[in-house]
Amino acid sequence: MTQTAGRRTTGDDLIADFVTMSAYGATEAGGVERQAGTPAHGQVRTWLAGWLAEHGFQVRTDRIGNLFGTVEWTPGAPYVLVGSHLDSQPRGGRYDGAYGVLAAAHAAARVCARFAEAGHTPPYNLAVVDWFNEEGSRFKPSLMGSAVYTGKLGLDAALAVTDLDGVTVAEALRSTGHLGEADGPQAAFAAEIHIEQGRILEQEATTIGLVESNWAANKYEISVHGDQSHTGSTVMEDRQDALLGAARVIVAVRELADRWPGILHTSAGQLFVHPNSPVVVARQADLHLDLRSPDEAVLAEADALLEQEFARIEESTRVRIVKRTAHRWGVQSYQPEGVKLAAAAADGLGLSSRPMLTLAGHDSTNLKDIVPTVMLFVPSVEGISHNEHEFTADDDLRAGADLLTEVVARLCLGELAATDDQER
Amino acid sequence: MTQTAGRRTTGDDLIADFVTMSAYGATEAGGVERQAGTPAHGQVRTWLAGWLAEHGFQVRTDRIGNLFGTVEWTPGAPYVLVGSHLDSQPRGGRYDGAYGVLAAAHAAARVCARFAEAGHTPPYNLAVVDWFNEEGSRFKPSLMGSAVYTGKLGLDAALAVTDLDGVTVAEALRSTGHLGEADGPQAAFAAEIHIEQGRILEQEATTIGLVESNWAANKYEISVHGDQSHTGSTVMEDRQDALLGAARVIVAVRELADRWPGILHTSAGQLFVHPNSPVVVARQADLHLDLRSPDEAVLAEADALLEQEFARIEESTRVRIVKRTAHRWGVQSYQPEGVKLAAAAADGLGLSSRPMLTLAGHDSTNLKDIVPTVMLFVPSVEGISHNEHEFTADDDLRAGADLLTEVVARLCLGELAATDDQER
Repeated sequence: MTQTAGRRTTGDDLIADFVTMSAYGATEAGGVERQAGTPAHGQVRTWLAGWLAEHGFQVRTDRIGNLFGTVEWTPGAPYVLVGSHLDSQPRGGRYDGAYGVLAAAHAAARVCARFAEAGHTPPYNLAVVDWFNEEGSRFKPSLMGSAVYTGKLGLDAALAVTDLDGVTVAEALRSTGHLGEADGPQAAFAAEIHIEQGRILEQEATTIGLVESNWAANKYEISVHGDQSHTGSTVMEDRQDALLGAARVIVAVRELADRWPGILHTSAGQLFVHPNSPVVVARQADLHLDLRSPDEAVLAEADALLEQEFARIEESTRVRIVKRTAHRWGVQSYQPEGVKLAAAAADGLGLSSRPMLTLAGHDSTNLKDIVPTVMLFVPSVEGISHNEHEFTADDDLRAGADLLTEVVARLCLGELAATDDQER
Repeated sequence: MTQTAGRRTTGDDLIADFVTMSAYGATEAGGVERQAGTPAHGQVRTWLAGWLAEHGFQVRTDRIGNLFGTVEWTPGAPYVLVGSHLDSQPRGGRYDGAYGVLAAAHAAARVCARFAEAGHTPPYNLAVVDWFNEEGSRFKPSLMGSAVYTGKLGLDAALAVTDLDGVTVAEALRSTGHLGEADGPQAAFAAEIHIEQGRILEQEATTIGLVESNWAANKYEISVHGDQSHTGSTVMEDRQDALLGAARVIVAVRELADRWPGILHTSAGQLFVHPNSPVVVARQADLHLDLRSPDEAVLAEADALLEQEFARIEESTRVRIVKRTAHRWGVQSYQPEGVKLAAAAADGLGLSSRPMLTLAGHDSTNLKDIVPTVMLFVPSVEGISHNEHEFTADDDLRAGADLLTEVVARLCLGELAATDDQER
């Protein structure tokens, strides 16, 4: 839009805005409940849109509800996309995603002001982005908005996904006023900052994590099929107890993790029982399994063992187990030149940093597959995540935003494009 | 009301009425879904009320929604109560409870006609009854209507019970038009016929089970408390996974049953997970356990072992387990003179019979604690129960109604009272 967009916001401004933002969907225990497309989620997005407009950004929403605040210096040039997500898990923490969006907005405002003062016209344009439905708790899969943006998921399929009450993504977006008709801006580079959701930075007293690659993940939808019967009168040998089968799957999946300590994470977080009556042996149980590793070979071996366990459980429990892949991604590197750029920027600011992996998926996991992408972490106290007690110290929030500002400025100025050219 | 009530219905009439009745809430697979207080349950009760009125019974509903069809021969005398329940489990079978109510209605109509023709004025009056909410799937506890009638459960507490959507028993009863303001008739004796829900009669090719006593049952509400975290990024040792804790409880409860083959039945039929999101390690899991045995000492020993298992799971899984008793009953005999009366009646009709126990609870379990009560079984094919494929052959349905007719006639004539006097 204009070179007068932006403002040199301070770390105190950032913290004050973070407090304001965290009131949307606030829970009593200090977290937030802002699942995708709910009223609280809609409200915090409306607040963000207002903030972006006030700071001179053009605000628009695309067809899957990604919200962009853009500034255009060079007409027709592609954009540096910087952002994260404002949706949360049920009773989630207030930092997860939200900090990354706010830090992106402040970094973008600062970069705009800096370029305006210096009289720079950078070769790339800039967009702050709040990706829709990163969490995937209400609408599956997770990373939905960035998956549609990067062409990994079809728009119509995503809009038609329903929650447990049968509400579609399209209906939820429309009801909160965040279903747009625009296209998103074209990306040249991307950046995201996020809390670590682990203990490494805290344990090593390091301020910044430079994400080099992500753990691989296999997510499965499992249906265990049994047969309804009476919990009292049916003799034990006659039962085909789907809930018992599911319980054995959950225990087996947990025991798999013990075979590869530290390099295999496994879990079952979601389970639905049918008919779920106290006096009825369940006919069906549907559960969601999540296996992750930094080593794809470990994941493949764990998968094979899991299949063997399923066969054993089918026999011992007289149930049938059906496995469908819900979502999977491999170990994939972020562009090394981006890691190098961020490391240099951190050094320049005097911030301690270290390379690391991300165990969780992020919107940047999708973005890095189409453009060079920088992913940064700030510390999480005790690694607590997806929990109302998630916490990151204000000083770390400030430092992260300062670094993101520097990274975004360099990306807009084409430093990564130049590095890229030199190296090839 | 009058001595002209009733009709000598035939076995074919019974089967035809059973087909009509089974259409209310019919499921595609041949079962019924008529949970307590739902529209389908209200409709089948309205149909029953019409049937009873057509056959000369006075129809009334008491304050907990028990539906009675009465005939009064001797003003002021107490009643023989004969009946069962029309509510079902979700996707339940069409015989469970419903057969007992219809057989009671036919038996009562036949007894009325028989006495009218013979010019008898029996010393006891007669009431057909459809007890409210025997199943307890929508509103806990089970056996609700008969528990309030027999004074085991307070009326106000029962009316205030809510389903998962927060609808109260009172609201559900009112919405189906079956919340009454009357008192139920005073009982002198009771009788109930039901499908066996086990394989014994079928395996022994016996038509009638004469229930001598019931298995004891301990039902528990268990809450497993953990802490929310991220299924991907949280290291395994840091997790306090409530769903994993619940899964280990379910497996442990199942393994208990293997220690006492045939004399301990255990199950978990209901489980709720919080927040039940695919990417969140659960903070809480609530489940319902059901342990039953014909031997109270076995049940007590199983209970003690279960507590030890809970302690082990709390330690291994870093969760806290809270146990509350939801419902319990001991091994209690039906009055032996009632068993004897029913055995003689079966012999008189040329029906094979054998004494047995009931594993499931029935409304008669409550009734027998206040008046002499006769409980009869007819065979269940393969013992299938709480399942749409529940089945009892028409000939067995006919035979059961014939025997119930004979038992009700003898109870109305005071045969059990006389026997009782002689023996004491």
